[in-house]
Amino acid sequence: MTSQQPVLALDVGGTKLAAGVVTRDGTVQSFCRTETAVAEGPAAVVKRLLDLGEQAAAEAGLPLDRPPVSNGRPFAAIGVGCGGPLDPETGIILGPPGLPGWDSVPLGQLVAERFGLPTYVENDATAAALGEYRWGGWDVQNLVYLTVSTGFGGGIVADGKLFRGAARQGGELGHVVIDWQGRRCGCGARGCAEAYVSGTSIARRATEAAAAADSTLSGLVVTAKDVADHARAGDPVARAVWDETTAMLGRMVAVLINVSEPDLVVLGGGVTRSGAQLLEPVREAALRQAMPPAARACDVVLSRHGDAVGVLGAAAIAYERREES
Amino acid sequence: MTSQQPVLALDVGGTKLAAGVVTRDGTVQSFCRTETAVAEGPAAVVKRLLDLGEQAAAEAGLPLDRPPVSNGRPFAAIGVGCGGPLDPETGIILGPPGLPGWDSVPLGQLVAERFGLPTYVENDATAAALGEYRWGGWDVQNLVYLTVSTGFGGGIVADGKLFRGAARQGGELGHVVIDWQGRRCGCGARGCAEAYVSGTSIARRATEAAAAADSTLSGLVVTAKDVADHARAGDPVARAVWDETTAMLGRMVAVLINVSEPDLVVLGGGVTRSGAQLLEPVREAALRQAMPPAARACDVVLSRHGDAVGVLGAAAIAYERREES
Repeated sequence: MTSQQPVLALDVGGTKLAAGVVTRDGTVQSFCRTETAVAEGPAAVVKRLLDLGEQAAAEAGLPLDRPPVSNGRPFAAIGVGCGGPLDPETGIILGPPGLPGWDSVPLGQLVAERFGLPTYVENDATAAALGEYRWGGWDVQNLVYLTVSTGFGGGIVADGKLFRGAARQGGELGHVVIDWQGRRCGCGARGCAEAYVSGTSIARRATEAAAAADSTLSGLVVTAKDVADHARAGDPVARAVWDETTAMLGRMVAVLINVSEPDLVVLGGGVTRSGAQLLEPVREAALRQAMPPAARACDVVLSRHGDAVGVLGAAAIAYERREES
Repeated sequence: MTSQQPVLALDVGGTKLAAGVVTRDGTVQSFCRTETAVAEGPAAVVKRLLDLGEQAAAEAGLPLDRPPVSNGRPFAAIGVGCGGPLDPETGIILGPPGLPGWDSVPLGQLVAERFGLPTYVENDATAAALGEYRWGGWDVQNLVYLTVSTGFGGGIVADGKLFRGAARQGGELGHVVIDWQGRRCGCGARGCAEAYVSGTSIARRATEAAAAADSTLSGLVVTAKDVADHARAGDPVARAVWDETTAMLGRMVAVLINVSEPDLVVLGGGVTRSGAQLLEPVREAALRQAMPPAARACDVVLSRHGDAVGVLGAAAIAYERREES
């Protein structure tokens, strides 16, 4: 009855950790979140992630014993989504910009050893693309998923298949260029989309702009949510930063529509909690600036998965790679 | 013996028309070229293209009779590469920027009627990507082909399969953005790669720069080849335009390496006749600015097909789509 077993899914974000139990039809049986507290370093964060996994299993009525769990395993596998670069074969994390100090962290091995279950690690945004394809309710074969979160990245499903690429990074979509001589990106190059539209970059740009102007943001420890809120409330500095962000994200989505020609671009991640304030200008700018045949074939929407998008992605990866192995 | 029959391949460029007879192993049995003379309009250009096809057939010892040719057809099919946008299903050309006046030209039908053979029309750069994959001698499964010609575009082969996309345009790679508030592109958006690195755009940027400065280019009717030649001869204006072009093309190739994670990026088209003067700075900039795992998995090279790259692409499409049909 292995095929009826659910999977345990873990999601390592730059701001939040999440864990959940997910069935084959995409039902989230339990869902737990906590702060990443990335400053505590990888050992403490991984410990908290594993504890969160146990908690999610217990909440779903499927408690995990400590290893070895040789018989009657409650889960078919464990899926883990984490910021890249990482090696999906070995499960080693290779120094993602959003997780300082995570150089050569053997995350897959640590999870597998704790729970005694086959464990599959994948780039979080690549994973989320597969989760959207499988369970997003979209009924399309070609989909680009973009996560606008602490960082900014994405994944591609083409002809119903997750795109992985020769380097197995699944497409580093955050590093599409917007302004080739613009802001320095964490990757070392200039003007990548991530240097502007990630939650971190939105907050940084707003802090810089507020310091130089009379803004309700001045003196705050600014987050992307603050920028959205103050923009809605009419603050001109927050408004200018938000409008530039949606214009840049829209242009970047147009590039992806041109290159990947999807049926659908799905936006998810924490910054998309701003809803129509983000989606509407991004959608308008993207469909106006993409090449007409590609734009006509495509739409831009928000994920319906909300905060569970990362856990559903990790679960989709666990099912897919378990079947392949 | 159908599988042993060669195909007739036609290539419609903004500057040159080409035709050739190509066997299943990629041998070019005949190759003819002439000027497009796009100003004469689609009817005159198509007539010249059809005559060139007859000439190529005759030179290969396989003369085509006028229709109907019901028996003993010398060719398995005809492949046609042309600038997009176009509809590969109907073979109708939909107003490519490089072919002014070609709005709704039923190119596939005109070719099929003249020769009485199954005819397959595809975006020229998409076709060339398949030609490079099949016959380029590269032995890779993931390849991006970019044509730096009158226009600028490309195609993608992923996991050994030509990428077509939901809109069937095969990826509008020329419309990756470089400078989102930069030069107006023919597509209507700002700062696309095509607005800078196509042969037409290189010449235009050099003409503008030369008019404002003391340059050996001043007063010439400038082509991209002139810019390369004068840059090599030490003209500072030509040099600055050339260096900006290779820097922009390198950055754009880095974006494609990030998004598509190919094993290989192949550059072809007329502007690549400048050889190492183009390749070396583009390769250096691309591999330096792409994300390290993707860059390590990839190299950037020039096509070995030279002027025949378009004809080989059109031939590859004819073989592929003939097999699918």
